[in-house]
Amino acid sequence: MSITKNQISFVKELHKKKERQAQSLFIVEGEKCVHELLNSTFGIETIFATAEWIDANSVILMQKKLPYCEISPAALERISAMSQPNKVLAIAKQPHSVFEINALVNKFALVIDGINDPGNLGTIIRVADWYGIENIICSPTTCEQYNPKVVQAAMGSLFRVNCTYIDIVSFLADYKQKVNQPVYAAHMQGVSINDVTVSPFGILVLGSESHGISTEVMSMCDSKLTIVQKSIHQQTESLNAAVAAAIIINKILG
Amino acid sequence: MSITKNQISFVKELHKKKERQAQSLFIVEGEKCVHELLNSTFGIETIFATAEWIDANSVILMQKKLPYCEISPAALERISAMSQPNKVLAIAKQPHSVFEINALVNKFALVIDGINDPGNLGTIIRVADWYGIENIICSPTTCEQYNPKVVQAAMGSLFRVNCTYIDIVSFLADYKQKVNQPVYAAHMQGVSINDVTVSPFGILVLGSESHGISTEVMSMCDSKLTIVQKSIHQQTESLNAAVAAAIIINKILG
Repeated sequence: MSITKNQISFVKELHKKKERQAQSLFIVEGEKCVHELLNSTFGIETIFATAEWIDANSVILMQKKLPYCEISPAALERISAMSQPNKVLAIAKQPHSVFEINALVNKFALVIDGINDPGNLGTIIRVADWYGIENIICSPTTCEQYNPKVVQAAMGSLFRVNCTYIDIVSFLADYKQKVNQPVYAAHMQGVSINDVTVSPFGILVLGSESHGISTEVMSMCDSKLTIVQKSIHQQTESLNAAVAAAIIINKILG
Repeated sequence: MSITKNQISFVKELHKKKERQAQSLFIVEGEKCVHELLNSTFGIETIFATAEWIDANSVILMQKKLPYCEISPAALERISAMSQPNKVLAIAKQPHSVFEINALVNKFALVIDGINDPGNLGTIIRVADWYGIENIICSPTTCEQYNPKVVQAAMGSLFRVNCTYIDIVSFLADYKQKVNQPVYAAHMQGVSINDVTVSPFGILVLGSESHGISTEVMSMCDSKLTIVQKSIHQQTESLNAAVAAAIIINKILG
């Protein structure tokens, strides 16, 4: 059965956040990411794939009774959000997870204040997964986790790390009351990460490259952690947000 | 004077590597990057900018006697390589630098073996700049440093870090003979970066996420450095190439 015009417009609509939210669905593309999706607990609505991909994955498609549809490379290009589509595009179901603050006791979590570059958010999710961080709490101004570019940059880690979008000021107030472990901020003017011992239980707050962490959120942080610049050039403004997050997280949990 | 049809096609041609090489020119876009270009030693062929940008930068344009052309936001969109063009696009001159291996004595340098994601290469250049690394030696299979996406991700660091494209096997042979400081490889199966002391004078070799470091290059490395995974999930394949580079570089030079 080949893809219908209705299906094409249905998938293309899912390129938009509004429609992803309305349908509680999102797009997962490419061999690696779809492979990870198949091995995750996420539900799958349908899979559009080339004959080659279907042949190679016929066993798992049958075992899991997954609905799929063969598609030509040209049609895949039409529905894809990638510049170079790669054999398969799956429509996955957004899980309905309930966030429990007590799950953060004796854990390390991230709070993201307004990072809106999808590549950066996806890379941070991948870093979190590598270091065993299970929870990321995002401000509503942060890029949506189901944005196709986030999904692609997260490389499957999205299926293993919970992202929760809530008001982070209320969240931090709640965290201080119920969990009360240290809240660190990644900041340009703080203490060098080389000079402090950071608790492996607590929170690291990350701001965007352009706006940093908001004043209100910053006032709720216990201390500021800084990556010291070693260049003789004063111009280098800052590190990429995901790179800075990774360096600090490695220092704490690596 | 507004932009001519010839100028539009001239700039659009520079989106292609072949034309950038033929003309020894490249595109620098956006307020931040062009600001860094103006403060660099790089030559500028011409600047296309909105009236607003020209007004705000009239002093430096006059002081430096820079050729510029006012352009409408719509025309900027036509010549831009960015999805969201930002006020200004400059055509910069590729410098003709001669690479001297003796400049690497008692320095730390990077060797890149085939990273072809422009965002990753640009981010690595930015990290190098932050840590005072002046030289990156790239295999000819590595993405071109003047690719617009590299320029954008490097955020001005491109003007302060030398990228040299040469055969890296011959380079490493030469390095061992003339400089003879340690050559480290970033690798999934090596010694944990937490368990070794790494010399701040030497070379770190980085491979691509998909292909890693080639066998021939690997045979010229003295030791392999690994970032240990902390996740309970076995699936997380690897860290993003730029993130892995940053974590190791911070460990060595941070």
